[in-house]
This record gives sequence, C-alpha cells and structure tokens, in this order.
Amino acid sequence: MKFCSECAHPVSLVVPPDDNRPRFVCEQCGTIHYQNPKMVIGSLPVWEENGQIRILLCKRAIEPRYGYWTLPAGFMENNETTTEAALRETFEEAGARIKLHGLFSLLNVPHVHQVHMFYRATLLDLDYAAGTESLEVALFTEEEIPWNDIAFPTVGHTLKSFFADLARIQKEGGSYALHTQDIRKPMRHTESPQA
Amino acid sequence: MKFCSECAHPVSLVVPPDDNRPRFVCEQCGTIHYQNPKMVIGSLPVWEENGQIRILLCKRAIEPRYGYWTLPAGFMENNETTTEAALRETFEEAGARIKLHGLFSLLNVPHVHQVHMFYRATLLDLDYAAGTESLEVALFTEEEIPWNDIAFPTVGHTLKSFFADLARIQKEGGSYALHTQDIRKPMRHTESPQA
Repeated sequence: MKFCSECAHPVSLVVPPDDNRPRFVCEQCGTIHYQNPKMVIGSLPVWEENGQIRILLCKRAIEPRYGYWTLPAGFMENNETTTEAALRETFEEAGARIKLHGLFSLLNVPHVHQVHMFYRATLLDLDYAAGTESLEVALFTEEEIPWNDIAFPTVGHTLKSFFADLARIQKEGGSYALHTQDIRKPMRHTESPQA
Repeated sequence: MKFCSECAHPVSLVVPPDDNRPRFVCEQCGTIHYQNPKMVIGSLPVWEENGQIRILLCKRAIEPRYGYWTLPAGFMENNETTTEAALRETFEEAGARIKLHGLFSLLNVPHVHQVHMFYRATLLDLDYAAGTESLEVALFTEEEIPWNDIAFPTVGHTLKSFFADLARIQKEGGSYALHTQDIRKPMRHTESPQA
C-alpha cells in the first residue's frame, strides 16, 4: 500500500495512538488502513458407493500451484457465510453439488495471512465438471490420491486427517473431530490446542 | 474505496474478466482490490472455585457498544494464528492469562463482513485488570451475567451455548461441542450445518 484509498495522499507506516503495531496511516485525511488475514474456505466432498469412499479433487488451472491437485476452496467473499462460501467454491471450481456437514479442519497459515477451513460434505451426484479455475475434476480413493502432487499443505493435512478419522470410526465407532493445525514457513507443523 | 492504493488513480467498480462480482479495479495500473471478511477472535475464560463456575467479561470502553459487556475479543492481525489472536486479545482487553482449549463457537455475521470465533479457556489466576479498551473486567456466574447488556449477539450466543453445554455435561457427561451460527440482520438466526 502506497496511497490512501480514500484521498490519494501517500500513506506512512506508523504506530497510531493507542495502538501497538505499525499501520498504513494517511496524514492528510486520518484514515488508518488496517490489514487483516483472509479466510480460504472449501469442502471435502465424499462419494460412497459399494462401501468404497472416494474424494473429489480439482487439478488447478491457475497459479499458484498450476497443475497440482486441491480440494475445492477459495477466498471467502463479503456478504456471505462460511458455509455459503464452501458451497459456492465447490460449485465454481468443480461444478459439484454437495450437502455440507460439520467444519472438519481449521488451519492457520500465518506467513501468508490466511486461515483455511474445510467442511466435510457429501457429493450429491456425479454431474461434476471442471470450472474455469480447474483443468480436471476427479474422484480418488485414499490409495489413488496423488499425494505427491497436492497443491497446498492445508489440503494434504485435511485429507490425511479425514482418512485417519475414517479408519478410527470404522474400527471403533465415534465421530469426526475438528482438526486444527498451524502451518508455518518453512513447513513447521505445530498442534493447536484442541478440545 | 475511491483511489488505487498502489498508484493513486481513481478506481472503478467493475466485474473483472473471469470474475463474477464487482471489484474496485484500477484502470491505470490494473490492480484489482479484493475486499474480504475479517475475523474477530476471542476467548471464553472460565474460573472454577469451590464448584462454582464464573466467566470473565469486559465492559467496553470504546464504540461500538460503549459500556456494554463482552467476552475479550478483537480483530485477528496479520502474521498471527487464531489461538495467538485469542491469547493476545484476552491479555490486551482484560490483562488476563489463560490456557486455551478447543474452538468453541464460530459465528458468521455476513452483513458486517465478519466471522467471530471464541475459544474455551481456563483463567490461570485472578490478576486480571482492564486494558485501554475496557472500563472494567469482572467474573460472573450464569445468574450474575448482565444478559440485557451484552455488547454483541455473537457473545450472547457463545455464553448461552457454554452454559447449555455445561448443564448437559454435568447431567449426562460428554464434552463441549463446536457451536456454529449465522447471525443475520435484522437478527434472524439460522443454524449452520453441524457435525
């Protein structure tokens, strides 16, 4: 940020009164331009048939990570809720209709100022199709997932947590948990406190 | 937003190519200025003594809702995680040291472009004190809470959900759940899908 978006005067990076960190401040009109993390919201769409569980993934048609595989997800927009964002991104990127279940993962990525959240979901039909941001959309069993070609650590962590929960539930019963993780650069994973 | 923060040229509100909603776009330097929801993160600090549960609340010394009571919470900053934000806000507003437990509530407030999240927490000692944004900080039992003077619906919902969970756990056992809610204007509450 170089100029005030309200009056076009050059901004200064200073600590405002009663604050404790530098902000972009306009000394002409007084506006303080706060910058805060953004939310990336997506879904983990599950298709179960003949006892076989498969997950819908999208191959990215855009940078960053062009050609790598991701769960459908994207930046949450103003005027929508987290669940509306998950439904919208899943339809935009994968043409897929889903039923949402609970929030499954919440992953902090502080070095890029992002929080990623994924909802567990049931894919409602097989009429999915790649949107403009995807090269390809396909269903994968746990063994088929291209584990070495996953676009983002938050997606890999969410997929691994899902299959770990699934194995536990199939063996012992119980339910899916909320998985939280902090992903720091360089790739240092730390557990968040959890219930 | 009236001017480009990169080059000071006036911005236009137009739908960019490959997009589906209006953005502030600079036709001089080409920058698209995305605007996204912000996260407000806080804690629900619990003090238990002789079997009595009390919650730490702050009386707001700033607008909006000056003089009303809130859980310690505030805007998440860049370069921090959700748990770091909860710890920081609790210390800044209430001078309180806490141990965080799981994420307890996630509340969408789409008409103000916010998502509020509260972590359940244990207050570690009684050396709390009002920060610059609080007039007063105090502990309240469920009966003592100033229910008619709570600053925000997200705080009221989080407090009510906590005491409902507590009553259920004391009666039947079990554990705290994640509570999600969409709070729309005018005050139309809708349940989010939940696990």
